[in-house]
Order: sequence, then C-alpha cells, then structure tokens
Amino acid sequence: MSLGMTNPGAARDIDREAIAATERLIRPHIRRTPVIEIGGADLGLDASLRLSLKLELLQHAGSFKPRGAFTNLLSRAIPKAGVVAASGGNHGAAVAFAAMRLGIPAKIFVPSVASAAKIKQIRDYGADLVVGGERYADALAASERWIETSGALPVHAFDQTETLLGQGTVGLEFEAQAPDLDTLLVAVGGGGLIGGVAAWYAGRRTRIVGVEPEAAPTLAKALAAGEPVDAEAGGIAADSLAPRRVGALMFPIARRHVEQVVLVPDSAIREAQETLWRVLRIVAEPGGAAVLAALLSGVYRPRPGEHVGLLICGGNTVAVDFSR
Amino acid sequence: MSLGMTNPGAARDIDREAIAATERLIRPHIRRTPVIEIGGADLGLDASLRLSLKLELLQHAGSFKPRGAFTNLLSRAIPKAGVVAASGGNHGAAVAFAAMRLGIPAKIFVPSVASAAKIKQIRDYGADLVVGGERYADALAASERWIETSGALPVHAFDQTETLLGQGTVGLEFEAQAPDLDTLLVAVGGGGLIGGVAAWYAGRRTRIVGVEPEAAPTLAKALAAGEPVDAEAGGIAADSLAPRRVGALMFPIARRHVEQVVLVPDSAIREAQETLWRVLRIVAEPGGAAVLAALLSGVYRPRPGEHVGLLICGGNTVAVDFSR
Repeated sequence: MSLGMTNPGAARDIDREAIAATERLIRPHIRRTPVIEIGGADLGLDASLRLSLKLELLQHAGSFKPRGAFTNLLSRAIPKAGVVAASGGNHGAAVAFAAMRLGIPAKIFVPSVASAAKIKQIRDYGADLVVGGERYADALAASERWIETSGALPVHAFDQTETLLGQGTVGLEFEAQAPDLDTLLVAVGGGGLIGGVAAWYAGRRTRIVGVEPEAAPTLAKALAAGEPVDAEAGGIAADSLAPRRVGALMFPIARRHVEQVVLVPDSAIREAQETLWRVLRIVAEPGGAAVLAALLSGVYRPRPGEHVGLLICGGNTVAVDFSR
Repeated sequence: MSLGMTNPGAARDIDREAIAATERLIRPHIRRTPVIEIGGADLGLDASLRLSLKLELLQHAGSFKPRGAFTNLLSRAIPKAGVVAASGGNHGAAVAFAAMRLGIPAKIFVPSVASAAKIKQIRDYGADLVVGGERYADALAASERWIETSGALPVHAFDQTETLLGQGTVGLEFEAQAPDLDTLLVAVGGGGLIGGVAAWYAGRRTRIVGVEPEAAPTLAKALAAGEPVDAEAGGIAADSLAPRRVGALMFPIARRHVEQVVLVPDSAIREAQETLWRVLRIVAEPGGAAVLAALLSGVYRPRPGEHVGLLICGGNTVAVDFSR
C-alpha cells in the first residue's frame, strides 16, 4: 500500500508498520499522554456512553505537533543551516521545541499578527524568530526566500510523510490505552493528525470521525469535491484548524478511512471549552475542544453504550492568568 | 493495628485492607485519574529524575475530596435531614457533588476566604450554601450549631475514619499506575489526604513526604510538638491547606509513616502554578501545585535517578477565563 505515490517526497508508506517504527524513533523525546475515561452523565449526555479523552494537550509545547516535528528532525537529513518553519501556531512552537532538544538550528517565521503568547513560547525554546509581514502568507514567502539562500530544511506542518507518521503515533498510543473504542473523534485542519491517526486505525473496528469548524471545512469540502480544494479559513479555531486546504498526502487516507466528517459552529466550540474546564478542569484551545463540541451540540450522535474516543489535541490559549 | 482508637467514631482500622474495600465501594462514583510521567529536564531539574504526576485535579468537583465524601455517604447511616459539611471549599464542593449524585440533602458552610470558583461549584451542585466567618474554624463552628438543631450528619473534611479511607484510595490507584515510586510528595492541610495515602503505603518502599506552605505548617508543628497543635493558617493556599491543625486520626499515621515534612514559601507555590501551566498545560490551584513547589524551590532534593511521585490534588481556581 503506497498512499502517497503522487508526492515525490513520499517515499515511505503511511501505514501501521511505519507508524510503529516512528513511535520507537521518537519515544525518548515525547510524552506518552494519559487517557481519562468518564461517563456520559458527567456531560449531561446519555449515561450509558463511555467517553475516553486522550489528553494530548499535555504533550510538549502544548499540542500533538512535536510528534511530527521530532519525526522530521530525526529521520531526514538536516543541513548545517538547520530547519525552518513558517507558522505563528502550534507547529512553529513544536519545531522550535524539537530543534532545541536536538541541538539543531531552527528559524521560525511568524506574521506580526501572531499572538504574543505564541511568540514568547517560540523565543523561550531558543529558536531564531523572525516576526514580519502582516499575514501567514507573508511569513511563508519570507521563509521561502530564506530557504533558497540558506539551504535550510523546511518542515511542513501537515503535508509531509514524516509529519503524518509522527502524528499517527497518537493513534498507536490511544489504541493501546483504550483498545475497545467504537469511534474516535479527531479535529481537522490541514489533516496531518487525522491522516496519521486514520492510517493507524485502517482496517480496525474503530471508526474515525473528523470534526471541523463550520468556518473552516477543509476536509468536508475536499471529500465533496473529490480532491483538496480551497475552503473558508476563519472562525474561533482559525489559528489551528484553518489552513486553506487539507494536504495532498492525507487526502487518499481520509477518503478510505475517515467514515464521516461533522461540522461544529464556533459557539459550540466555545461552550465545549467552558464545559471541559467546569467538568474536568482541562483547559483546551478551541481546536482542542472541537471534538467535544461535536458531542455536546449533537452533530455527532453516538449509539447507546458507545465507547467514544476524544482526542483533545491542544491547549495553547491565553485563557489562563494566575494573577486573577 | 487500630490507629484511631482515641476517637469513638473510628471503629475501623485505617489500613490497606480497609482502603481496598473502600475503593470497591466508591469505584462506580469516582474517576480513576490519570498519571503522566515526565523527565526532570522538562522542569529544569536533573535530567536523571523521573517525575510521575497523578492528575487528581481531574477528579469530580476538581479535587481528591469526593473520594472521602462518597465513602462517608455510602457507608454511614444518613438521617432524613441529610448531611452537612464545613469547608474551605473543596470538601464542601465534594460533599455537595456526592450528595447530588446520591440524592441526599446537603448543607455546606464555607468561610468568606473560599474562592469564588468553589462557591459557584457548590451552588451548581444544588447544595444549601451558607457563607460566613473568616476562616475554616468559623464555618466549622456555624455548622456545629446547625447540626445540633437539625440532626443532620456531619461529614468532616479530614478527621473522620471514612474520610481518611476514601482519600487513601488515591494511594491505591497511584501505586497501581506507578509501582516503583521512590518518593511521593503530598500536600498537607488537615492531613486527610496524606493520612490516607500514608496508611496505604505503610511498610512499602515508597517514602511519603509532606509539603506545607510556610504560612500554614500544621503537620510540621504537630510533629514538633508530639501532638496536633494550632498553627498559623494563612498564605496563598489558605482555602485548601490551612485548617488550624491536623486531625487527631491522621496524626499517629503521620508520625509512623510520613518520613519528612517540608515547607514552601507562597512565592514558590505561585511559581509552581505558572510552571505547571507553561510546561504541562495543567491548571492547578495553589494547594495542588505545592508539591511541585517543593521540588522547584529545592526544599525537597531528590537523589539522582529518583522516581518522584507528585500528587496534583486540586484545580479549583478562578485563573481561567475563555473570554480573554
């Protein structure tokens, strides 16, 4: 099975064997994030439901992204100029973190609209930070000019085989921790996470359901069109779930192994954030709470007794202030 | 072994057998909270250290207290007038929660020092709430006057056999999840948590270390005096770690099975809260972060390679606001 044959960079299959090998490679560098099981009644849902939440927001740098970042940095040839990423978001922080841990130079380009908190995180990890341009596209263009002159290696946030393999290790861990999931809800932006996770669960009994903001329906539009196409890129989770389109590498995986994609309104995502804090003392960013929003708003309706997995994938928010 | 013979209410031994039986009793009502292991380097400490954090702040009602509350409500005779509790906050929320789940009337007395978060919680759980008096002791006195007239059953926050047995189930779970802990750091207020946990680990290789705020050294003073004595009751964790003295039931357990008590300044507790959020995306209340403060401030110094357990015991804080 070679799912990525259309991409010249995709020399490796994205399957269970490759994900398991990736997990052994990155294991010393990532956290095995814990799972907590609660009953549906805790959330005002059918009491027969079992809900297992994988707390991947407790990962280094506050999201799942270091899995892919470490996979890139450990398995690709790193030039002397190091690595480069354009991102004001979780991917930039993850690449900066992995580069710091591995002693690799990293240059991260962020647009001036990036949050101060995110800029501080990337600085704290010691990356060479370039703040410039108003939008992501400006930062991306600046990074590309720098790649040409420096020879640094670009690390793509989602459309790169190593990135997908790394994110797939979340699935490997989750299956070991909760082997009898009927369904697994996964948030979708560029699709690196759901692509890797769906490749891990391919052919298994656990059904993979994608969750997207109504304001950024990248995978829903791609599946409808039969190929990745531009979608709206806005809403409350715009900093994590709203690239313009899903990746070319994840698309054939999603078409075969993602059973359903549901869309949630921003208001439901905000409510899910509040509920996670009130009921579980978990602080998730909008992209991390979107899967719970699908349950609470009823756009995903489990059967009685269903065991639903929820991948809580990020916690990078400015909602916390201990001086309050 | 009967550790509580001085108290007429303490008909049961507080030992592993009783704690295991308690765990079976309350299992359907509490969450098995997860453990995450990180390396010392994540916190700027010796990289050879292994740190296992039990995230008991993810328990119902945001702290370990429902374990003791359910144990009381499920194993004692409940009068028609229901139950009553005096609490700096977490115990009151826990009794309110357990009473709600079991359909028992509950009246909760809290001092004005209780955080707004805890007061809101108690109201949300549908308990009859009385706010009055400056400190825990004032709320306790008010509750005792009401018990005399109503005949309601008092559920003591720490000095009650069932409470200690319930809190001891945290130890049972933690040992199963991380069997090779060298040391376990536990925060101390009235001593219900460390009393139950130390009773579980009695005679095992894991050493129990108590952590108290300098501003509320209840156990340190009791151990120095040879009996529970009044101590200062102030500081940043006043709403959870500052009753005036430790309980009579826990004291003989602590004298035999708590190896050491360390004191942390409020500034270190605040820094530990910030660090837990920055490094792990965990939001703990001051009482929940105190054990990490002992490590970060160096008042507890582990040996190289030591496996240290950290009981992160509460997360009820107003530090979170998603509208920011």
